[in-house]
Amino acid sequence: MQVAIVLYPGFTSLDVIGPYEVLGRLPDTEVVFVAEHPGLVVNDLRSLSINAVASFDEVPNPDVVVVGGGPGQMEQMTNENLHEWLRKVDRTSTWTASACTGSMLLAAAGLLEGRQATTHWAGHEILAKLGVTPSKERVVIDGHYATAAGVSAGIDMALTLAGLIAGDDVAQTIQLIIEYAPEPPYHAGSPDSAPAEVVERAMKEISA
Amino acid sequence: MQVAIVLYPGFTSLDVIGPYEVLGRLPDTEVVFVAEHPGLVVNDLRSLSINAVASFDEVPNPDVVVVGGGPGQMEQMTNENLHEWLRKVDRTSTWTASACTGSMLLAAAGLLEGRQATTHWAGHEILAKLGVTPSKERVVIDGHYATAAGVSAGIDMALTLAGLIAGDDVAQTIQLIIEYAPEPPYHAGSPDSAPAEVVERAMKEISA
Repeated sequence: MQVAIVLYPGFTSLDVIGPYEVLGRLPDTEVVFVAEHPGLVVNDLRSLSINAVASFDEVPNPDVVVVGGGPGQMEQMTNENLHEWLRKVDRTSTWTASACTGSMLLAAAGLLEGRQATTHWAGHEILAKLGVTPSKERVVIDGHYATAAGVSAGIDMALTLAGLIAGDDVAQTIQLIIEYAPEPPYHAGSPDSAPAEVVERAMKEISA
Repeated sequence: MQVAIVLYPGFTSLDVIGPYEVLGRLPDTEVVFVAEHPGLVVNDLRSLSINAVASFDEVPNPDVVVVGGGPGQMEQMTNENLHEWLRKVDRTSTWTASACTGSMLLAAAGLLEGRQATTHWAGHEILAKLGVTPSKERVVIDGHYATAAGVSAGIDMALTLAGLIAGDDVAQTIQLIIEYAPEPPYHAGSPDSAPAEVVERAMKEISA
């Protein structure tokens, strides 16, 4: 099995590394970090570079495609080369997946029309404008599309996919190996549970 | 504030990216990926390379040091250059932190003697042999040392540190931005909650 993980300048690192850490541990699986321009791709915070080893052309038939989000996603909304590749690989992929605002790129490529999907909590309205029915679930499966809520939700999405691809035993084994028994020290991970001033501050930082 | 994140061949990506995604969002903070040999450093699964931008000598006074784990940690147990650098930066660091088996490297450098610390669930006995009192807590703070359980626990550790460094408001804002309201699809993240056959399978994979 081949998993292709898309990188572009300004990606959010946990959006891609969460799913990578899970899907990369599936049996007999090769992961390829793919980008329009192979080589070092710099993230949103500008202090991390991941090496993309392949161009879009070099990965024509991945079984699983994962697109993460991040501030750089905005620029990719008009990248026809990316959209064209997404449409092409989606025809043969078993799963086309996203974390965070990566789902907006799937939508921009025309893949999610009329579907249910999710994205970062701050992006639900934008997703709706792209012809997608936004869901408040953390992980949404609709057809062969798996979308996750913001950033860290990619881990939950990938574990869900791991179970669908390789069975519950394998997915649980991966969960145990990465000791994913989360204990956040606060209850501020969603706008429904965070204090109002924290939501306001986060909105301000996101739109900055 | 400067945060130094250590890379070495065979690191586990989420061990370092979890803490990075949180600590990299602290106000007025610079993150430096540091390695004995700067340049591309390949992870345990061999499909990801992160660029280390600085050598140990080039990062003499980080405020926070983070050491992750992974199969490559074994080889670093006898890397005197790493140990010496850890001892040196620890003298002036505000926090010296680890995720997963990274704590074994702090212990090997002589920094955790007589302290409480944690590591991956499969590594508690080794940690005890290194003169450390292993704790079953997911995040352990002892003095200026912050250690996390396996892989994904680095996120919880970093949010805890973020609160101690910059206050609860900032830490909660980061938690909300990364939408860290986890919903694992299984309850297999710890050996206490995972089915016995999953624990057995994970043990086999870890020791392979």
